[in-house]
Formats: sequence, structure tokens, C-alpha cells
Amino acid sequence: MSLIGTEVQPFNAKAFKNGEFVDVTEENFKGQWSVVCFYPADFSFVCPTELEDLQNEYAALQELGAEVYSVSTDTHFVHKGWHDSSEKINKITYTMIGDPSQKISRNFEVLNEEEGLADRGTFIIDPDGVIQTVEINAGGIGRDASNLVGKIRAAQYVRQNPGEVCPAKWEEGSETLTPSLDLVGKI
Amino acid sequence: MSLIGTEVQPFNAKAFKNGEFVDVTEENFKGQWSVVCFYPADFSFVCPTELEDLQNEYAALQELGAEVYSVSTDTHFVHKGWHDSSEKINKITYTMIGDPSQKISRNFEVLNEEEGLADRGTFIIDPDGVIQTVEINAGGIGRDASNLVGKIRAAQYVRQNPGEVCPAKWEEGSETLTPSLDLVGKI
Amino acid sequence: MSLIGTEVQPFNAKAFKNGEFVDVTEENFKGQWSVVCFYPADFSFVCPTELEDLQNEYAALQELGAEVYSVSTDTHFVHKGWHDSSEKINKITYTMIGDPSQKISRNFEVLNEEEGLADRGTFIIDPDGVIQTVEINAGGIGRDASNLVGKIRAAQYVRQNPGEVCPAKWEEGSETLTPSLDLVGKI
Amino acid sequence: MSLIGTEVQPFNAKAFKNGEFVDVTEENFKGQWSVVCFYPADFSFVCPTELEDLQNEYAALQELGAEVYSVSTDTHFVHKGWHDSSEKINKITYTMIGDPSQKISRNFEVLNEEEGLADRGTFIIDPDGVIQTVEINAGGIGRDASNLVGKIRAAQYVRQNPGEVCPAKWEEGSETLTPSLDLVGKI
Amino acid sequence: MSLIGTEVQPFNAKAFKNGEFVDVTEENFKGQWSVVCFYPADFSFVCPTELEDLQNEYAALQELGAEVYSVSTDTHFVHKGWHDSSEKINKITYTMIGDPSQKISRNFEVLNEEEGLADRGTFIIDPDGVIQTVEINAGGIGRDASNLVGKIRAAQYVRQNPGEVCPAKWEEGSETLTPSLDLVGKI
Amino acid sequence: MSLIGTEVQPFNAKAFKNGEFVDVTEENFKGQWSVVCFYPADFSFVCPTELEDLQNEYAALQELGAEVYSVSTDTHFVHKGWHDSSEKINKITYTMIGDPSQKISRNFEVLNEEEGLADRGTFIIDPDGVIQTVEINAGGIGRDASNLVGKIRAAQYVRQNPGEVCPAKWEEGSETLTPSLDLVGKI
Amino acid sequence: MSLIGTEVQPFNAKAFKNGEFVDVTEENFKGQWSVVCFYPADFSFVCPTELEDLQNEYAALQELGAEVYSVSTDTHFVHKGWHDSSEKINKITYTMIGDPSQKISRNFEVLNEEEGLADRGTFIIDPDGVIQTVEINAGGIGRDASNLVGKIRAAQYVRQNPGEVCPAKWEEGSETLTPSLDLVGKI
Amino acid sequence: MSLIGTEVQPFNAKAFKNGEFVDVTEENFKGQWSVVCFYPADFSFVCPTELEDLQNEYAALQELGAEVYSVSTDTHFVHKGWHDSSEKINKITYTMIGDPSQKISRNFEVLNEEEGLADRGTFIIDPDGVIQTVEINAGGIGRDASNLVGKIRAAQYVRQNPGEVCPAKWEEGSETLTPSLDLVGKI
Amino acid sequence: MSLIGTEVQPFNAKAFKNGEFVDVTEENFKGQWSVVCFYPADFSFVCPTELEDLQNEYAALQELGAEVYSVSTDTHFVHKGWHDSSEKINKITYTMIGDPSQKISRNFEVLNEEEGLADRGTFIIDPDGVIQTVEINAGGIGRDASNLVGKIRAAQYVRQNPGEVCPAKWEEGSETLTPSLDLVGKI
Amino acid sequence: MSLIGTEVQPFNAKAFKNGEFVDVTEENFKGQWSVVCFYPADFSFVCPTELEDLQNEYAALQELGAEVYSVSTDTHFVHKGWHDSSEKINKITYTMIGDPSQKISRNFEVLNEEEGLADRGTFIIDPDGVIQTVEINAGGIGRDASNLVGKIRAAQYVRQNPGEVCPAKWEEGSETLTPSLDLVGKI
Repeated sequence: MSLIGTEVQPFNAKAFKNGEFVDVTEENFKGQWSVVCFYPADFSFVCPTELEDLQNEYAALQELGAEVYSVSTDTHFVHKGWHDSSEKINKITYTMIGDPSQKISRNFEVLNEEEGLADRGTFIIDPDGVIQTVEINAGGIGRDASNLVGKIRAAQYVRQNPGEVCPAKWEEGSETLTPSLDLVGKI
Repeated sequence: MSLIGTEVQPFNAKAFKNGEFVDVTEENFKGQWSVVCFYPADFSFVCPTELEDLQNEYAALQELGAEVYSVSTDTHFVHKGWHDSSEKINKITYTMIGDPSQKISRNFEVLNEEEGLADRGTFIIDPDGVIQTVEINAGGIGRDASNLVGKIRAAQYVRQNPGEVCPAKWEEGSETLTPSLDLVGKI
Repeated sequence: MSLIGTEVQPFNAKAFKNGEFVDVTEENFKGQWSVVCFYPADFSFVCPTELEDLQNEYAALQELGAEVYSVSTDTHFVHKGWHDSSEKINKITYTMIGDPSQKISRNFEVLNEEEGLADRGTFIIDPDGVIQTVEINAGGIGRDASNLVGKIRAAQYVRQNPGEVCPAKWEEGSETLTPSLDLVGKI
Repeated sequence: MSLIGTEVQPFNAKAFKNGEFVDVTEENFKGQWSVVCFYPADFSFVCPTELEDLQNEYAALQELGAEVYSVSTDTHFVHKGWHDSSEKINKITYTMIGDPSQKISRNFEVLNEEEGLADRGTFIIDPDGVIQTVEINAGGIGRDASNLVGKIRAAQYVRQNPGEVCPAKWEEGSETLTPSLDLVGKI
Repeated sequence: MSLIGTEVQPFNAKAFKNGEFVDVTEENFKGQWSVVCFYPADFSFVCPTELEDLQNEYAALQELGAEVYSVSTDTHFVHKGWHDSSEKINKITYTMIGDPSQKISRNFEVLNEEEGLADRGTFIIDPDGVIQTVEINAGGIGRDASNLVGKIRAAQYVRQNPGEVCPAKWEEGSETLTPSLDLVGKI
Repeated sequence: MSLIGTEVQPFNAKAFKNGEFVDVTEENFKGQWSVVCFYPADFSFVCPTELEDLQNEYAALQELGAEVYSVSTDTHFVHKGWHDSSEKINKITYTMIGDPSQKISRNFEVLNEEEGLADRGTFIIDPDGVIQTVEINAGGIGRDASNLVGKIRAAQYVRQNPGEVCPAKWEEGSETLTPSLDLVGKI
Repeated sequence: MSLIGTEVQPFNAKAFKNGEFVDVTEENFKGQWSVVCFYPADFSFVCPTELEDLQNEYAALQELGAEVYSVSTDTHFVHKGWHDSSEKINKITYTMIGDPSQKISRNFEVLNEEEGLADRGTFIIDPDGVIQTVEINAGGIGRDASNLVGKIRAAQYVRQNPGEVCPAKWEEGSETLTPSLDLVGKI
Repeated sequence: MSLIGTEVQPFNAKAFKNGEFVDVTEENFKGQWSVVCFYPADFSFVCPTELEDLQNEYAALQELGAEVYSVSTDTHFVHKGWHDSSEKINKITYTMIGDPSQKISRNFEVLNEEEGLADRGTFIIDPDGVIQTVEINAGGIGRDASNLVGKIRAAQYVRQNPGEVCPAKWEEGSETLTPSLDLVGKI
Repeated sequence: MSLIGTEVQPFNAKAFKNGEFVDVTEENFKGQWSVVCFYPADFSFVCPTELEDLQNEYAALQELGAEVYSVSTDTHFVHKGWHDSSEKINKITYTMIGDPSQKISRNFEVLNEEEGLADRGTFIIDPDGVIQTVEINAGGIGRDASNLVGKIRAAQYVRQNPGEVCPAKWEEGSETLTPSLDLVGKI
Repeated sequence: MSLIGTEVQPFNAKAFKNGEFVDVTEENFKGQWSVVCFYPADFSFVCPTELEDLQNEYAALQELGAEVYSVSTDTHFVHKGWHDSSEKINKITYTMIGDPSQKISRNFEVLNEEEGLADRGTFIIDPDGVIQTVEINAGGIGRDASNLVGKIRAAQYVRQNPGEVCPAKWEEGSETLTPSLDLVGKI
């Protein structure tokens, strides 16, 4: 059974955001769309480029009413230290959650127990705190943040238009399908 | 713990491919790259367009040395029936696996036990039968098969160039990074 | 212990009937006589002829106040697809239940867990939802729907005439036996 | 899971046959076709007519190479007593098994534990001792032995012609179907 | 621990008595003295003579206010059939209990689980439903019903004269002993 | 399940016999017929008369090749003390077993655990150490040793003439029955 | 953990005292000092002399307000029998408890489970029913009752003078010690 | 079950003896008679006088071939410290075992778990390491070491003269009893 | 998980302090700072010098509002005995707790179960009874009590100035740090 | 039970040392003395000064043949990042172990499971990999590294001079004690 359709489980965490240390709980994932992006380790290699790429999409995601959170098993202290040190990370303005207790990573089923590090999982969560999409890549395979906008648009359309279905590669404005018995076996 | 980095578990199944009924096991996922695409049900709505979209990428994926498999909990008989009935499905030339025992869907952790149907999960598997990427969408949010090519290319590059890392949005020919201590905190 | 004399256990299912998708629960089996006919798989071989044969008896069974339900572990979508494709199945006007969660088949103890398919079991259920007859055949041995009418008539006679017993090969109008002590060892 | 396709479990019993007391085990069900007919109680009401009806088919069943066994939880002594007393039972020449230990009835899942009596179950067993058909009726609904001949013929045809399938209401000499991919969705 | 001094456990049974089928429960064993006589099987060998012998004592036992019950794991139907067939059994006017569910035999600890038949146990039960004497013989060793009268008289004397004790081979009218300290070691 | 037909379980005990202390084990019950008579307590009331009665039959039982053993949970020291004190007990020449460990009484299922005393059980054991008859009386109801001779004769006849059966109230020299099918329902 | 300082556990027993049968429970051990003397068996060897010796001290113990109880796993009937037979035992006027259920012996942890006999344990119990001294000897080593008087006097002194301590070999009238810090390491 | 007749369980301990620290194990209790004297605490009140009293008997016990050991849950360091400080303890020449791990006290069932101190138990152990006598007193009731000599003499006599028994208050040279059947109930 | 930050668990003990025996519980560790110093054994080697060293710091610790407790598994009797005997220990004026039940040592996780002795652990406990520092040395490595003053001062400063942090080797009057985001990575 | 005297459990970790990433296992703690210093988090407040203080003692510790390791649950990547950012940390030349799997911290019993961070524990380990000293401080109470030199010297002296003991505040060259019986209670 995948996590799709399940509600985010409770947690308490410290995060770094815009030069501040802030508290984050599962309640932050309710009332707006959320993108949650796990990565293994601060100060490691692929991660900065992925997180920079995510920052580049941040404005577009915010326009769609979506907030962005990155999570690693590092502390919020380390997030600040990295933010201060790395040119790429310094640009980041979204919330960087510290998960040293590994509880959030375990809840999202991306914790590598042997290493104590999170897999590279990206989750889209709807305003009810329910997980809508999961994407996880093995180490070394970078994620492309640019398709998050499309996925959220599709998810928002489905949410606003219950009873219609959204074919593959849907783009806003394109025709959608309202399921009817006649369509069975026709499309 | 995610399925990333784990080997596909054993199974036996009947499939429909090119007008034939064939046997498929986990051994089929070894010796070449594989894309495995789960979907809930034949003769239902989003699925045909997703599967058609996957067919459109099939040639490109084959050029990369990747085989494509679709899986639902329907039987291979139903796959043939659908193939005969639906214009979109009729184009499909890749292997359509029947999983009425629900064993494969359960192994890939995409079985909705309540409904007896698979979630919309896509997996890329390397030639060792090890899962490299996972992507799962809630019902109604169509998948875009076009980014499979990019992901496999990245995965292949990482496999062929151990010791280099592949930043986000990597495209073939672009520069990659060889991890060195000096890069820590710099990128 | 057989299922004879036990009440049908609760379930929720989607079915295809007369070009519509309808909901069916165990409550549908109460208030009238029901014939429930399990078979392994849509689009497979013996099944169509058995189901066609059942359709041929449908009018006669309805005259006896009996409803007819077929069940396989295929979805209601597939039932519609098969109905559209197959000349034999297209004639069917009774309710075709989809049991992809395999719950109904498991409740009636006809699920082949290894294959995920139902055995060829036929059940007659009385208006209290209590199972009165069970008949199950191995694959390949077709069922003869024509004796369902006789069985239901006998079951209805017994229900309406408690205290009489119905000898083998009973036919309506023929003499029945009222059990009395004198009959012991005489018949 | 039904008993269809499972082998008869081991047992030891005393039986009455042709004026003799004989031993019967599960080995008697191997090497020829067998009809095993459970009924609740000697000296009770429906049973004699059902058993007489079975006797009437005995010759035809023997011509098909099938042996006939009746079973109740009465002893073999009682079977002899009943045979001596009842005009209908006196005609019986097939084997009447006594199952006072209730083990056989429990193995065939027809034992009513509360009453200590067997349900009215009829089983056809192939020469490997494997159950091919099950039929069970509630009390008062008589069984019609005449369709046993047809069922055994169908079962024998399937056994002798693996790869062909036998549509409903099959009768010897009628055309059977050899399953091929082309037939899917056509019949 | 023996059953002596324990109350008969609850049961429900059908019995044959004087040409009628009657219901019997553990309540029938209260309010009068009862003799309960188990035997293995109707229509078998020693049993008829034992049961006939018991019938011969029935009048004398009734004069003592004692009722008589025979029990085997045969049904009440079989008891009637045997009553009709056997000259010896036909004389019986006491209650013949059918115990096909084997519950009574199990409660009295005389059920041979392997055979499903009762051992030859005779029990005297007082008007409170409490077991006063147990006698069980191996197969082939006939019981002598004639000493039941003496045992019940002794049991009744003890019940009516609490505080006296009844030496071996006591006969009505003979002197009994009132236990006193002086008797210790004297008798 | 009664103890009839079961072998006596192992034990070690001290006994008093003919002015001597002797060892007794379950092996003493093999190679000859044995009568084992449990009683609650030395120096108590009914017991002496029962034991005296048993002594009176001792010679007759020995002629039949049967040994006699009395058992209580008293020690062998107490048996000697009682033998010395009581006129009735002083006559006893059979073996008086002491069972202070209560093991023998528990094995024969006659131990009243609450009181630590044995019920009044009498057992006949065949030369294989197998229990053939059980008789247990509540306190106050004396046993009549005189019918032990008859029971042992019957048991010996059955043992020497396997295949014949012994009707109730059988006495030596009287006609016995050889079971044959023809007798079923006739006697 | 020894029994010293623990309260006597509940029991019910029959005893022989002064030619009477009396009831004894753990309540009898409250309100006065008690000496409880276990021994293996009536009518055995060391025991009579030990019990006679105890009788010789009885008057002195009574003067101290102490009652005396002997206990064996023999019954009260046997105690009377022994009292009648043995010159030594005949002198006894204290309470002889029968413990055939072995419960008291087990509670005082002196039951030899293998033999069903009590070890030779002597216990002094204070007026609260709390065990103050334990003495147990192996078989053959006789106890000397004469030191019971001294032990009870010491125990009584300690009870009446809490805060003083009583050195070894204390005798009434001799100086006792009131514990004070100054005594530590001095005596 | 008491410890009488059981072998001392294994242990390892440090002890103080004659100005030396020595090792003691359960093997020290074999090959000669041993007196083992537990007491609660060094530097406390009753203990010194008891231990001094034991020292006074030491020579006499050694003449009988018996060694003496005192045990408390104090360490051997404390034993030395006490020996140096206390006039009474300074006289001690027997072995003073330290049991800070509380294992020996627990094995002899004299450990008060709540306090971590040993009860005042004295044990006589025979040359096979088997416990022959147990004596335990509540706090404040001093032990009298002088009767140890008598007990060991009695135990030695029994050991050397198996088959004789030793009446209460036995003293060397006095007549003992050889158990014979004639003595039962006579003494 | 260490004991740091956990509350002291409940206990009851006797202690020696200033020539008195006093009761100590976990409540004594509340309302003031406490130093608890475990050591293996009175009258052993390193311990006296460690305890003397602790006495030397006692005045300074009291000035800081801290009480001092030593604990070993010896009794309070032994503490007094040692105090009287040893010149070094005689100087001690702080509380010497006796822990013969080993409960306190077990609660502080310093009990060597095999030996029954405590490891050399020193604990600083704050006025809420919460453990603030732990220091444990292997046998032979003496502790230096002089750094307790510094540790308590640091702990007191932190307690009185929540929100400031105290760098290593902090000494009263030196500058402390108030954590702020700007300090991350700077110090 | 404390960790004193136990061997370090196996682990595998990545560490940062002198600008390199190196592997560290429990084997690194064998063959020389080791100081292992846990702290909660890189880039947090007290930690840098503690670690700087430890660096200041590093040369002196190396002269004693001791290696130094710091451990936090941060990764080795973060250690490098911190090393690059912080002036204080940049001076560090000893090995900084990353323990993101939390296994080492859990083995040393300093993991705060709720927070996922290590307590401030310092351990001295001897050349056999056996823990000799433990010191743990609550958050905010800085450690003073300067006393590590003294502790190691003392531990080394004890190791090289088995049989001597080392009083508190021992310094090299000062007199040590060789334990002898005479010293008991003297020092």
C-alpha cells in the first residue's frame, strides 16, 4: 500500500527559514498545497543543485498557492550553517526542516535506517494534508523541479472538478474528460 | 524505508504482448533497463491515455535499452479484450502484465487492499533488477511519460560513471560533477 | 462445515447491469430469491457459454421471483468492456458484480488465493439471505443452468410448507411427504 | 478456498456393501471415478428417496467407470439395519460408508458440528483422488442423481482432452472448444 | 478426579420413547432418580441383551422412583428403526436418547473419540442431578442390570439418613452404622 | 474418554501384605488378572466392611487367577497399624497399597484433590495391564464384591474367545454369541 | 526468602484432640503463641518419641501461653487410630492435625512432593499468626523439644520489649541489650 | 519443599579466616561436616554474641570433624574490619564468608530481598554437601550454638548406621532403634 | 539514553551522619543541590582517600548550597564501624548511605550485579532531583573531588540564566554566551 | 550496570580528519588509548568551545599515546562544512566522527532518542577497547578537557602496575598503595 491518499502523520520539528528558526508541525501542511522535498545530507553533492532548482520554481509554486519545504536528517543549526556557506543554498527562501530525530523521514517511508539519511523523495500534499503524489529517485539521479507546477495544476483541477478525469500530459486549458459509461473501452 | 535500492521480489505472471500470451517473472527485469507502470483498471478512464502516452515513448526507451511493462490487477485475458476493443490500447506493443493474484502490486507496495486495485506507480529498474526511481500519483493526476527518457539517461550515466554525481535537471552531454572534498559547501 | 444455512456476509461492490453501473451489497440478496454464479475470468473460454446459458434461464428464474448475479474478480469496468465486445455476453441482462477486492469470493469460499480467481460456484440464496444450495465445478466442466429452476421450486416449496419433506427429483405438483414417525424406516 | 482440485484426505472406515461389512479408505477413491454422496441420517425422510435415485443411476455410472459411495455419520451396523428394514434402501448395491467418528464428513467440510450430522453434499472425484465437483443442498431440497452422468462425462472428456474446454450443457458428441487467443472476447 | 459428586452438564437431545420422539435435557435428570446407560451402537451385538436386561428391571426401578435412559451416538431415527426391527429392543419402554453430536457422551467421559462411539457406562444420578455411581465395562463384558436396584436403594437410604453410613452389601432393613468416634478402628 | 482399554500408568509404592512391607509397581498388574480397589481412608467407617467383603471373595478371585489390591492415600505404616487394630481388617491377606504421594489415585482418576482422598473406585485389569472395568460409588454407597467374580469370568471368556460376544448377565457355561452379520438387528 | 516474618496462610483441617474430632484453621494460630510440629507419618519410627517428647514439654509451653499442634499428611481418623494403638501417642493431649490434602505442609514448605510426606519441621508462631522460628531436620535426626521453651521465652521478651535485643543463649532474667549506636562494633 | 536433603548449589566467594583472605566455593562443603551460620549484618547487635557463642563451640565441632562458616551479605573487607574492631569477633577463628552478591543467601533461601540482608539461618551439611538440618530465627531471638554438637552427633550416627533410627533427644551411647515391622504402632 | 535529565527514582535507606543513624529518601535530593558519590566497599583501598578528598571539598560545596552523600552497598552499621576504625573516614561529616538492598545503586545504573558492589560513580543532582552530571571511573582510577565545585557553579549559572550558554572551562565571572542565530557557525 | 569495564561495540562510520574523509570502526579504539567525546550538534553553541578546549589538550594527550575522537549525529559532510566555517573548529586536527545512523551514540548510551542528538559524554578507552571512564554533563554545563590528561595517566599507571591502587587526586610520581590486608580499615 502506498502513502497516496493518506494523511501526513503528526510531527514536531525545528526549521530554518529566511534567517529565522521556526517550529513546523503537520498542521503547517493544511490549508494550502505543500511540496515536501527530502534529501540525504547538507553539505553533500547533488543536493545543492536540486534545492537550488526547487528555489527557482518557488515563485511559480507560490502563485499556485503552494508552500515548499525541504527536509533532511540534519539539524536546523546545520541548515543555517549551510545557508551561510553555500552560494546555491544561500538563495533559498523556503522552509528547511531539520529532522535529526528521523521521525518525519520515517513517517514518509524514505528513511534509510542503515545510513540514518533520507532518500530523495518529493511529495505533493493537498490542503487537507493528504499525500497526492510521491516521487523518489536513487542517489545520483537528480530531480527536475519544473514538473511540480504541472502536477499541482493537474491535482488542483481534479480537486476543483470532481467527476472529471485528467488524461496524461494534461495542461491547463486543455480538454478534460468527464467519465461516463460510454467512454469505457472507447478511449 | 522506500523501495529505492531494493531488488524486485520474485513473481510469476501471464502477460499479453503483441497478440501473444507470454509468461513474465522477475527475471525479465534483469539484463536490461525496465520501466514498470502500474495502473488501476483496464476499460477505465485515465488509464488509456497514460498507456498510450507510454507507447509513444516506447521507441525512445527501447533505444536506451529499456523494456516497458504495464501492470494492473486485471487478467491477461482482459488485457487482450481491451487491446481488441480500444483504439488507444490497440496501439500498444509493450508487455501488458496481468496481476489478478495481486502479488506484484503488493510487492511494489502500490496495492490498494480495500479496492483490490493498483495505485498509479511508475518504477525504473536497472539491469540488476534493482529499483532506481519510484513515482506514484493519486487518481486523476495523469503521468507524463516523457520524462522517463531523461530519468533513465541520468540513471545510466550514474551507473556508467560511478564516482560522478548528476545535478538536478541533468541532460545528456551537460557537465557532471565528480564529488571531491573541495566541493563540500561550495555547490 | 459447509456454507449451507449460513447468512451471506456483508460486502460492497460495483456491478454492471443493463448498461448501468450500480452498487450491490449483501442487502440485495434479501427479500427475494437469488442465484449467485461465480466464474474465473471475463474474456476467458467456458465462461461465456455458462453465462449465456444462465441468461437463457433468467426469465424463468424471474418468474419464480429469483434474481440472478454473476461474480468474477474482474472490475465492473471490465464487465462493461466484455459486454460490449462479446456477442454472447451482450445478451446478458442480469447483474454482473465486479469483485476486484476478492472479498465476496473469499466470503463464499470459492477464491483460489494462488490465482486470484474464483472457482465456478453457483449458490441459491433464500429471501432471508441464507445460502440454500452450493454447486462448484472444476475448470472445464460446464454448469447446466437449467436445473436451477427445479432447485428453487423445491426450495420454495419446502420454505412454504414447513414440516413436509421433498424427496429426490421432486417436481412441482408431485406428492410430497409430511414427516411422521411412521415413515421412519418405511421409505 | 473450495475443495475443488484438492486431494481427498486420509481416513479409515467400515462400510456395508452387498450384505458384507468392508473396509474403505481414501485409497478406494483412486484408480477409478468416484461419486461420494453424504446425507444426514439413516431412517430419516428425504434420504431414502435420494439414495434410491442414486441406485437407479448406479448402473449407468458404473458403465462410465465410476464407483458410488454413500456416507452418513451412522455406523455400518445401522446401514445394515436400515438396508434390512427399508424397501427402498434394500435395493442399494453400492457401498454405504459409516462415519461415526465424523472424520470423513469433517474432511469434506460437510459436518454440521452442532448436530453431528452431514450436510447433503455430493462430490465427484477423479481417478487421482482429486475432487472435481461439489454440490450441497439444504435439508428438504432433494438432489437429482441423473445429472451425475453428464457431469462425469464432461469431466472425463476434459481429462482425456487437455487443452480443450467444455462449454455449459455439454453433451457427449457435441463440439468442444480448443482455447485459442482468437476466441478471447469472441465467445 | 472422577465424576462422582458432580452435576450433569447441560445438553439438548432428541430421544425415542414409547413410539414418540421427545426432547431431553439435563433438567430431565432432576427431581427423580435416574439411571443413564451408555452403549456403543444400535444394531450391534451385546447391546440388545444389555438393553433388554435393563428393560426387565425397569418396573422395579420405577417403583423406586427412578427413570431409565439409554444413550448411544446414534440418532433418534435409528433408535426408532432398531425398535421396529429387533424383537428385544421392541420391548423397551424407557427413553432412548440419540447423541449424534456426541456431546452427552463427552460430558460423561465415555466417548471413544477415535471411533465416535460411547463406552458401556452406567450412571446413577440423584434427584439433584448429581452423579452417585459410575460403572464402565470394556466391550464384550455384559452389564448386569439387576444390581442397579440395590445400588439405588442404598443411595436413597444414605440420602434420607445423612449421618449414617452404609456398609458393603447393604440390603434394605439391615442394620446401618451411625458414624461415631468410637467406631474408628473398631469395625 | 474413559480409562477403559488404557494401560495402567507407571508408579512406585510401598504396600503391606501378610505382615510384610513390599514394593508394588505397575508391573505387578501384568501377567495375571488384578482387582484394584480404592477407598478413602483407613480407620474410617464404610471402608472396613467393604474391604472385609473383598477379603471374603479373595479365595474365589485367586482361583480365577486374579490378585487383589486395595489402595488408599494412607501410608503402608498406617495400613499395618490398622491391620493390627481392626478385627475386620486383620483378616485381610491381599496387598494393601499405600499411596501418600497420591500418584496412583490421580492416575486412576479417583483422587478428590480437595480432600486428598480417593473415591471408592474398583478396577479390573487384564494380564496386559489394561483396564477392563471401572466402578465408582459415592461415599456411603457400599460396593458388593461378589459380582467381581462374574465380571472377571466374563472378561476372561471374551479374552479367550475373541470373536464371540457376551450378552448381559452372562454366566459361565451359558451360550455366547459369535457376532455375524446375520445377527444385526435380530437380537 | 525464608518463611520467617510471614503470616500463616489460610487452611481448613480436621484434627484429633482429647478424644474429639475438631476443626482447625489458620485462625487457631492467632491470639496465643503456637508450636507447630510436622512429622512424616503416623505409625512410623522416630515420630512417636518426638511427639512424646513434645507432650512432655506441653505443660511448660502452656504456662507460657503457647498451644501445641502436630501435623502429618495422615487423616484425623488415623491420628485417632494411632492414639488408640500406641502407648506413647496415647499420652498426647495436644491437637493432632490431619493434612491429607497436603495443603498445610505445602504452605509451610515442608512437603516432600515425591513421597507425599512432611519433613520434620518445627515452627514457633506469634500471637499475630506470624512465623518466628523454623527448624527442620533430615529423617533420623530427632528433635529436642526442650529448647522450645527457651525460644518462646526469648521471642516473648523481644515482643514485649521492642527496641532491646537478645543475645545468643539468652535466659530469662539475664541482662539484655538495648541497641544503641555506641554498641556498634563494641560487642 | 524444604532444602533438607538437597545439595548446596555452586557459588564463589571471598572470605576472611585467621587474618587471611581466602576463596570459598561449594566444594569446601564436601568431604567433612559443615556448619553454615547466616546472620544479617556485621557491626550490628545480636550477631556478635551469636558468633562468639559459635566460636566457643568451634573446638568441639572440629573434634567431630566439622568445619564452621559464618555468612553475611557484607564483604570480606568488612569482616576483617569488624574482626579488628570488636573484642568478641576478634576471637573468631572460623571462616567468615562475604556474600555481597547475595547469591549464597539466595541459594539457602534466607535472603530478605527487601533489606538485602540474610535471615538468621543455621545449616548442618553432611560430607556429601547435602543439607541435613535447617534452623532459622526471627530477628532478636538468639541462637544457641550448643545444640549443634548434639545434632551433628545424631546425624553422624544415622549416617554411619543406616537402618537404625534415632529417637528424640538422642545422646551418644544411648540405645537407638533398628526399624522393624514389629515396632509400628508399638512405640 | 543516559540518566542525564532524568529524575532520581524513589528509595528508602538508612545512613550514618555525624554519629547518628538517619533515614534518607529521594526527597532528600530535592530543594538543594546534591552530590552523590558511589564507591564499591567500606574497608577497601582507594575508597578512603576518595571519600577523604570529598570531605575536604564539603565546606566549599555547602557554601554553594550543595549537600554530599556517599553510597555503597554496605549497611549503615558498617559505615559507623568504618568511621570508628579509619582515621581518614573518621573525618567525614557528610551523609554515608547504606544500600544493602542494592536498589539505589541499581537505579543509578552503577551496580555490578556479579559482585554486588557499586561502580565509582559521582552524580550532581539539581534542586528538582534531576541528574545534571554523571562521572564514573574504573577501579583504581581515583576521582578528583575538586572539580565538583566548578561543575556545580556552572550548573547553577545555567539554571539561573536560562537562555545563556556556558562554554567549556567556564569560571564564575567570565563572560557567557547568549545563544543567538548569529552565533551559529561563528564560535 | 554502567559501561565501565565493557568493550566498545562494533560500528562503521565516516569521519573528517585533517581535510580528509576517513573510515572509523571500533578497531580504531584498540592498540592505543582513546578519548571519545560526544556532543549534540555541529553549528550549535557550547559545542565549539568544548571541542576547541579538547584540541588544546590534543598534543598532551598524544604524548600519552592517546588518540582523540569527537562524535555527533551529524554527517561527516557537515563536520567538514563546520570545519570550513568556524574559526574555532577550523583548528581541530583530531578525528571528527559522523554518526547519522545514531548507532555509536546508542551503543555508548548517550543518545537522546526524542531529539536524535547525543548527550555530552566523554569516554576514556584503554588499548583493549575497554571503557575506563565515563563523564556526562547536562546541556549548558561545559566540560573541562584538562583533567583528561590526569585521568589517562592514572589509568595507565593502574594498567602498568596491577596490584597497586591509586588514591584520589593521584599525580604521576606520587606514592601509590599496594593493597595488602593490613591496609584494611587503616586508610
